[in-house]
Amino acid sequence: MTGITIIGAGSMGRAIGTRAVAAGRRIQLLDRDPDKARSLAVQLGGDILTGAVGDALDGDIVVLAVPFESAKAVVRSYGDALAGRTIVDISNPVDFATFDSLVVPPGTSAAEIIADLAPDSASVVKAFNTTFAETLTEGKVAGQPLDVFIAGDDAEAKRAVANLVEEMGLRPIDVGPLRRAQELEGFQFLMMTLQADPAKQDFNWNTGLKILTPI
Amino acid sequence: MTGITIIGAGSMGRAIGTRAVAAGRRIQLLDRDPDKARSLAVQLGGDILTGAVGDALDGDIVVLAVPFESAKAVVRSYGDALAGRTIVDISNPVDFATFDSLVVPPGTSAAEIIADLAPDSASVVKAFNTTFAETLTEGKVAGQPLDVFIAGDDAEAKRAVANLVEEMGLRPIDVGPLRRAQELEGFQFLMMTLQADPAKQDFNWNTGLKILTPI
Repeated sequence: MTGITIIGAGSMGRAIGTRAVAAGRRIQLLDRDPDKARSLAVQLGGDILTGAVGDALDGDIVVLAVPFESAKAVVRSYGDALAGRTIVDISNPVDFATFDSLVVPPGTSAAEIIADLAPDSASVVKAFNTTFAETLTEGKVAGQPLDVFIAGDDAEAKRAVANLVEEMGLRPIDVGPLRRAQELEGFQFLMMTLQADPAKQDFNWNTGLKILTPI
Repeated sequence: MTGITIIGAGSMGRAIGTRAVAAGRRIQLLDRDPDKARSLAVQLGGDILTGAVGDALDGDIVVLAVPFESAKAVVRSYGDALAGRTIVDISNPVDFATFDSLVVPPGTSAAEIIADLAPDSASVVKAFNTTFAETLTEGKVAGQPLDVFIAGDDAEAKRAVANLVEEMGLRPIDVGPLRRAQELEGFQFLMMTLQADPAKQDFNWNTGLKILTPI
């Protein structure tokens, strides 16, 4: 069973950690502040190894549960220690100054930029960028398991992430090559503007984007 | 009550026509082939004015239920006859040769390109591009009303389209300015690749993209 390293003990680290505990996975949780990682581990329960960003990586799957700028810094600083591992990029590179575009240029994505920074033998997979932290912690919305859209260029790495997602009780949807992260990041940016709009009273960072199929 | 002109008697013309009849709207249905328009009108029932593309426009809302290239040609040929009207662009400018990108450059959208071609006093609204024809004809998926994402720069025109969508029994979601069509078109391109993938047995051009909220 593949172990997971979650980097970042913020709201998305908590959500992914909650699901990973539910999946019964071995977990390593790292944060710049190791006390924060320890405190979250206690709340999550389960047998979780904690530490600081920079500690040796335990998991074959490394989830970057940090904002895009920090994710780039983490990948740069771990460098070759990421070789052979599956890196999961969950980021949404939204320009929060304007809330009108992404900070990555049109025609690329945070995931592709992170892949460029990672060692060649590491596989970057985009996942969990369309699941809000609160909803992901619950694992479902309106009684239905969340959809987790997965993009990547390495079939084996995507399968490993899809297996994890399934064990978390969620529905993995393989959406194709890593460049499909462009569409995933673009649409989630739109979703975020809806949640932030006070006129949209139904949307409070607790919705779930689903592809419904006929019953 | 605003009348609607639907241009195109294909599968999306049929779907939007079905919903417009359900909404009790006055409908004009035009096709390059007026016999095709007449034949669809008979199937839809209701009191529908039919004719050929090029006929005088009856509706205040003009739905371009044709592919992107045809939509551009229609807007160019009607020219000033579209002044003061609301033009609904439903197109998905997918590059079907590669099925790997859109034919519009990154950083723009079919809707914005159509708006550039339209008279200044016309208002272009993006809508119905994420609803597949079969699902839209039904009006719901898995027992739930479809979400219709609406983007546009003219609040009054968006309200008119949102009212129409509600009367059709669907849920309108205003996603902001017309440039948000970039994200709508990008994500629907991704959705289309999923439907076309024979490995995705649940997805057969009959799914519905929904934002679920906690019950």
